[in-house]
Amino acid sequence: MADALAEIAGTMSFPPAPRRVIFTLDCDGDHRMSQTLQIVIALFPGVTHLDFTGPHQVLCRLPGAKVTVASLAGGEIEADGLVFARLPKLSDIETCDVLIVPGGFGTTQAMGDPDFIAEIRRLADGARYVCSVCTGSLVLAAAGLLKGKRAACHWAWRDQLALFGAVPDAARVARDGRYITGGGVTAGIDFALTLIAELAGDAVAQGIQLAVEYAPAPPFNSGRPETAPAEVLERITALYGQGMDERVAAAKAAAGVL
Amino acid sequence: MADALAEIAGTMSFPPAPRRVIFTLDCDGDHRMSQTLQIVIALFPGVTHLDFTGPHQVLCRLPGAKVTVASLAGGEIEADGLVFARLPKLSDIETCDVLIVPGGFGTTQAMGDPDFIAEIRRLADGARYVCSVCTGSLVLAAAGLLKGKRAACHWAWRDQLALFGAVPDAARVARDGRYITGGGVTAGIDFALTLIAELAGDAVAQGIQLAVEYAPAPPFNSGRPETAPAEVLERITALYGQGMDERVAAAKAAAGVL
Repeated sequence: MADALAEIAGTMSFPPAPRRVIFTLDCDGDHRMSQTLQIVIALFPGVTHLDFTGPHQVLCRLPGAKVTVASLAGGEIEADGLVFARLPKLSDIETCDVLIVPGGFGTTQAMGDPDFIAEIRRLADGARYVCSVCTGSLVLAAAGLLKGKRAACHWAWRDQLALFGAVPDAARVARDGRYITGGGVTAGIDFALTLIAELAGDAVAQGIQLAVEYAPAPPFNSGRPETAPAEVLERITALYGQGMDERVAAAKAAAGVL
Repeated sequence: MADALAEIAGTMSFPPAPRRVIFTLDCDGDHRMSQTLQIVIALFPGVTHLDFTGPHQVLCRLPGAKVTVASLAGGEIEADGLVFARLPKLSDIETCDVLIVPGGFGTTQAMGDPDFIAEIRRLADGARYVCSVCTGSLVLAAAGLLKGKRAACHWAWRDQLALFGAVPDAARVARDGRYITGGGVTAGIDFALTLIAELAGDAVAQGIQLAVEYAPAPPFNSGRPETAPAEVLERITALYGQGMDERVAAAKAAAGVL
């Protein structure tokens, strides 16, 4: 119990190798883990880093979990000026319990990369939960995983899910069976807390939420198309529209090979 | 205008060298920048990465701004399992317009590192805004910058600000003159949008908020001590209490040398 608490608060780092962890929470005794829970976050060039740093910061405090951030080539991935280094290769990861794919402008290329898509399919195959944040759901869809499934996505690209037979869902966090998907970028934090509650119970999620002081207070109410000032929505939509033909074409190409 | 919009949405990366940028927004013509705005985020070992990845993802979309993430030694910083690489040295940065110090368990050591504190003082000296997220305000306080100033901090360590003559503020984002400080970890996103509104006007902040879909929907209301379930608060407080004597002693030592 003390160990579990310490991890929630972030004072302990995770051990380098898998270990046996048994923990129970007094108020939610149904949640038990008998071995390390393997969580894999799969990066690609052009990822939006907050899509995964948000969930990572929350999930790395989940008692009994080991979070591995990896990429196809391993090594370094640059994202908006930050360089994430020492990444293992996806092919070096045998299996995982939870697979998470973030989004970003690079999803256009990632959807069309057969090696990356093959790794996503392989890891998803044995995973208990297959998850995404932002346009990461388009990658899952391109891997043929979301046919007939409801999924969330960044508002500006959400409709493209339908090209793959998935059902676009405007929810902040959408769940359909083992698929748990978050909306755009910052939805990753809400997604991760939802996933933690599923994995370890409400009390653990609430403890981590308190530890990272997640009591958001946006200075504006402009985070969704429905609430943004009309002029702001018009400008951002116009801007995204400039590259949209290319992105839709890439999605159609990815959908065509399924 | 097109360039400014593209940066908001994240389709353009920032140029490697400073440049002249003139931009105006139709609905908020008072905000103009005639040169690149230099934003520096100062990392230290033991930083909590979401403290700065949240603000970074938002600020790197601010038109006309260049965000530099640096550390005392340069090179790599590991944070909860993520390795941030290719960091420049703080001493190689001549001046900045905005200085941001994130927090984390490493603040205990950072407060007592005279070389790091000297760089914070030097960069703060010429900055238009001096900012922090989470326990980063304790670093600013240890640098002697917050005497008589109101400042935010992670709820569990907030009171320690008083050791340095600062005034603890429970606000999500606190402002006192040129000092803009955020509360714990996830407050960094609210802080960054507040800062952007200050620097470039409400419309730019609203556009970036829409681009990163910041319409938070926490699955629980456990992000503050005032709202967390009593048992959750008790557990996390008990846990933080275990290392608190050491941290308070470190803060007192840092305060003693002012």
